[in-house]
Amino acid sequence: MHIIEEETEHYASAKDAPIGIFDSGVGGLTVAREIMRNLPNERMVYFGDTARVPYGSKSQENIIRFSRQIIHFLRTQEVKAIVIACNTASALALDAVEQELDIPIIGVIRPGTRMAVTVTRNKRVGVIGTESTIRSRMYDRCIQEQDPEIVVFGKACPLFVPLVEEGWLKDPVTEEVAQRYLVELLRKDIDTLILGCTHYPLIRSTVAKIAGEGIHLVNPAYETAQELGRLLAREHLANTGEHNVESRMHRFYVSDAAEKFGEFANSILPYDVKRARKIDIEDY
Amino acid sequence: MHIIEEETEHYASAKDAPIGIFDSGVGGLTVAREIMRNLPNERMVYFGDTARVPYGSKSQENIIRFSRQIIHFLRTQEVKAIVIACNTASALALDAVEQELDIPIIGVIRPGTRMAVTVTRNKRVGVIGTESTIRSRMYDRCIQEQDPEIVVFGKACPLFVPLVEEGWLKDPVTEEVAQRYLVELLRKDIDTLILGCTHYPLIRSTVAKIAGEGIHLVNPAYETAQELGRLLAREHLANTGEHNVESRMHRFYVSDAAEKFGEFANSILPYDVKRARKIDIEDY
Repeated sequence: MHIIEEETEHYASAKDAPIGIFDSGVGGLTVAREIMRNLPNERMVYFGDTARVPYGSKSQENIIRFSRQIIHFLRTQEVKAIVIACNTASALALDAVEQELDIPIIGVIRPGTRMAVTVTRNKRVGVIGTESTIRSRMYDRCIQEQDPEIVVFGKACPLFVPLVEEGWLKDPVTEEVAQRYLVELLRKDIDTLILGCTHYPLIRSTVAKIAGEGIHLVNPAYETAQELGRLLAREHLANTGEHNVESRMHRFYVSDAAEKFGEFANSILPYDVKRARKIDIEDY
Repeated sequence: MHIIEEETEHYASAKDAPIGIFDSGVGGLTVAREIMRNLPNERMVYFGDTARVPYGSKSQENIIRFSRQIIHFLRTQEVKAIVIACNTASALALDAVEQELDIPIIGVIRPGTRMAVTVTRNKRVGVIGTESTIRSRMYDRCIQEQDPEIVVFGKACPLFVPLVEEGWLKDPVTEEVAQRYLVELLRKDIDTLILGCTHYPLIRSTVAKIAGEGIHLVNPAYETAQELGRLLAREHLANTGEHNVESRMHRFYVSDAAEKFGEFANSILPYDVKRARKIDIEDY
């Protein structure tokens, strides 16, 4: 705990405090990236639960327990709002933890589905994601709550995450794999496709190329950053940036293997991640 | 527990009892397959810890705890010997649990490395495996204990497991990926290559094609089945087959998502897996 205490800052006002953001691993960094791009005055504390990844195969009970621990940790960092940048935790834990909190919290599923519901014209929406996201039908449910007429077609793309983690973002192999995964979905006459996994924005251009111009791609990471911006404005919590120190904007924590995380973070973020610190999340 | 008790059999003699075999998921089925092929009179009880996969990112303490729970479960099935068909558990838990057992237990690393040490002529051995297997250097250590002069070159191939699980075994994508992974290793002038992940025997022919004729491929699954055969003979535990009932040779258990496991098992085993039963392994 000592390392962390020494890092904790006290903020002049709630506006100056950071956003807490967490994911089961590195995928949520695409959400952090969109927040950096779209809300450049906001500071962040990111936590990646790399020791317990993947969340997709775990029970709801465990996902709620993990989320509570992480939120507890983030609150020791005096965050003013929390973003669950993980599909599984957004689907399974957001409702439970929201009630327990006195600061705002949002997930990635509602912002993404809201945009899909808004843009679809033929009411045929595709969702690509991990095996567990697609099997759980979390996107289907959330879309149909908003518009029961929309038909949702899901397709699991299990090779996309390891392809992204290999860094093969614009690559003939990735293109061939995407072609095979999307062919079925494209036959369903969808006009909207949700990138339902936090890794997928990194292969957005490959997916867009294969999906073609007629299909609107929805990036939940971008929509979540937009939603966060509106939320902070509404709650008078937006950081004006006047007390920010450029070199100390963001902090990164993981539960395992900090080196690999830092490498990946540096490869995708417009920010120099000097280090990711490993903490024992079971202590929280 | 009821379901399991009703399945438990009592065996006329220790020879008739099954082999217990476990892995973090489906990968160990390649070891089960080699046992079926090479020791056709042996019965098996397989456990795949699909709820807690992957083991590679977990601490040694947890891997030992998981292994103890699984061994406890397997002993309720009256197994006569145990095979750890998982690289991580073989490396991290075998020594600890071996001392606590009064039945024979073997892992997959020693049989594989023993063969590599025997066949290499130029003492340059390659190992391919998951990120965590390669990072842990578990094969390097085991080889160098046997012959410190051997130089070991490791290469992590993180796309191979999802490619195998997609069933793209003989596929241009898998070939292209293998080409990229192996090119570096082949430049090291290795004469022996260990398939250091239980999934890899399923893409053996693709790997062999790219490695070329000059390189001896070592399949630890096959070597483990051979080692088990010798062990059973030595301990007078080999099943003569006279009390076997063809339809009840093997039983399969998992800790999560039994349907997907059954599908994969049926796709690779020379045995009709009618069902895989889900148990709560934390109860053991």
